[in-house]
Amino acid sequence: MTPLWQREPVGVVGLGLIGGSLGLDLQAAGARVRALVHRPATAERARERGLASEVSTDPAVLQGCGLVVLALPLDRLLDPDPALVAALPPAAVITDVGSVKAPVLRRWRSLLAEAGRGLDPARFVASHPMAGTARAGVEAGESGLFRERPWVVTPEAGTDAGALAAVRELAEALGARWLCCDADIHDRAVALISHLPVLVGAALLQAADAGAGEASDLVRALASSGFADTTRVGGGNPDLGMLMARSNRPALLAALGHYRACLDALEAMVDRAEWEALQRSLALSQRLRPEFL
Amino acid sequence: MTPLWQREPVGVVGLGLIGGSLGLDLQAAGARVRALVHRPATAERARERGLASEVSTDPAVLQGCGLVVLALPLDRLLDPDPALVAALPPAAVITDVGSVKAPVLRRWRSLLAEAGRGLDPARFVASHPMAGTARAGVEAGESGLFRERPWVVTPEAGTDAGALAAVRELAEALGARWLCCDADIHDRAVALISHLPVLVGAALLQAADAGAGEASDLVRALASSGFADTTRVGGGNPDLGMLMARSNRPALLAALGHYRACLDALEAMVDRAEWEALQRSLALSQRLRPEFL
Repeated sequence: MTPLWQREPVGVVGLGLIGGSLGLDLQAAGARVRALVHRPATAERARERGLASEVSTDPAVLQGCGLVVLALPLDRLLDPDPALVAALPPAAVITDVGSVKAPVLRRWRSLLAEAGRGLDPARFVASHPMAGTARAGVEAGESGLFRERPWVVTPEAGTDAGALAAVRELAEALGARWLCCDADIHDRAVALISHLPVLVGAALLQAADAGAGEASDLVRALASSGFADTTRVGGGNPDLGMLMARSNRPALLAALGHYRACLDALEAMVDRAEWEALQRSLALSQRLRPEFL
Repeated sequence: MTPLWQREPVGVVGLGLIGGSLGLDLQAAGARVRALVHRPATAERARERGLASEVSTDPAVLQGCGLVVLALPLDRLLDPDPALVAALPPAAVITDVGSVKAPVLRRWRSLLAEAGRGLDPARFVASHPMAGTARAGVEAGESGLFRERPWVVTPEAGTDAGALAAVRELAEALGARWLCCDADIHDRAVALISHLPVLVGAALLQAADAGAGEASDLVRALASSGFADTTRVGGGNPDLGMLMARSNRPALLAALGHYRACLDALEAMVDRAEWEALQRSLALSQRLRPEFL
């Protein structure tokens, strides 16, 4: 059967990096894309860039869409505009792109159940397409962003099989790698590999500044590619970093606990001059790294 | 006056990444390079690669050199072969390339003073050319490695001005940026920007492994370029990481103390759900990062 994204228009809410990239790729694949944005200036620029077939600041633009992708930042996803919820087509499959899944699932399950009008929590599919660049906003969308990247979904027991299939067809049309898992396991994983590195790198920047003392100019002159790499995500967008921490607080605190234990052990080896143990521990890290690449 | 490296042969002890790259660039600049290596197989391969004009496993190869560069790993630099010390030409300017400076200075000051034979601690210039790649060994040397990279020297009150000038002429012939500072300040700076990132990244790899639990496969599938960057130096050569920690232990422990304080503060904000404070702290890290690049 023809995929839903080919049969009916696809609604995209938000045209930042993820929404804009979706719009470009979906249109290239032959979809009609109807986009809802917040500000008139964004709508105008999105039209100039051709990010969607139709762009509007009026939620009514979503009428007739068979599939709606909520490509909103986490804070707006967790506290959505009531006018957006009111404009969602009752029969539509709805998915999101939030980087934390359990709180999004909880919020939208109850939002859709309370909304009535035939909106069905079973047709909400929680997604996390893991594609990113350093860019954000209406200029950030680019073709091919999702190719070969993971597209994680966290269905529940009650999730409608047809809705899940419709999102899978969308993800695969974009060339993404489909991955299914439990929302809590997803959130634990991203805490460790995505949110913890932000705090680890942010603390390193502050420590290099605070600890330099008389060496203040020198640390800045000598910092090389190793320091730059280790602090890249830690020196990134503070609003995004804060939102991820706020939305994934319990999993992030658990990840910090594990991190502290590992760092404590390394520090103790340096403190006690246990050089063979330190060499073995660093060799473990060296062996682990290729498993994550 | 013609620089020393042009007037007299330059001795290079060790033909790994730094020594091999020195040999290639110095010969290209017109110098005669005499290299001392440990193993016959290394000597043979170094000759094939043209890393020096003359390569030998016999310390006598250094006779007649006006300037000798000790391009040895830290452990061999701090505990050198007595035959090497015995073969150093009495009038030569001697420099090293170790990534930690105070212990090297202490060790070589006494070694040269005890050696007699006219060897003079005042003609030892402690250097740290900050150029690196992931490669090591006789295959690693490459042209242009030092171009635009910092070449830090840590002279003392008694350091001979002519010896310092001779090393400066060498560094500048290779296109390096010359930087002079106190050895303790150098060691504090590299602890923060070079050695601390190794432990920070190594702990992150171990935490991602230890904290994953049921998410073990998922963390490996989802780790992206952000995780890869944050852990690049932490997943590097464990022997090198251990040697740096061992040679720079007090400065590294101080750096770890600063790091812990910064991470504790960030963790407390997450724990207490102080989201505005977390956003401000991450914004500080974002502002700091460009100062280090």
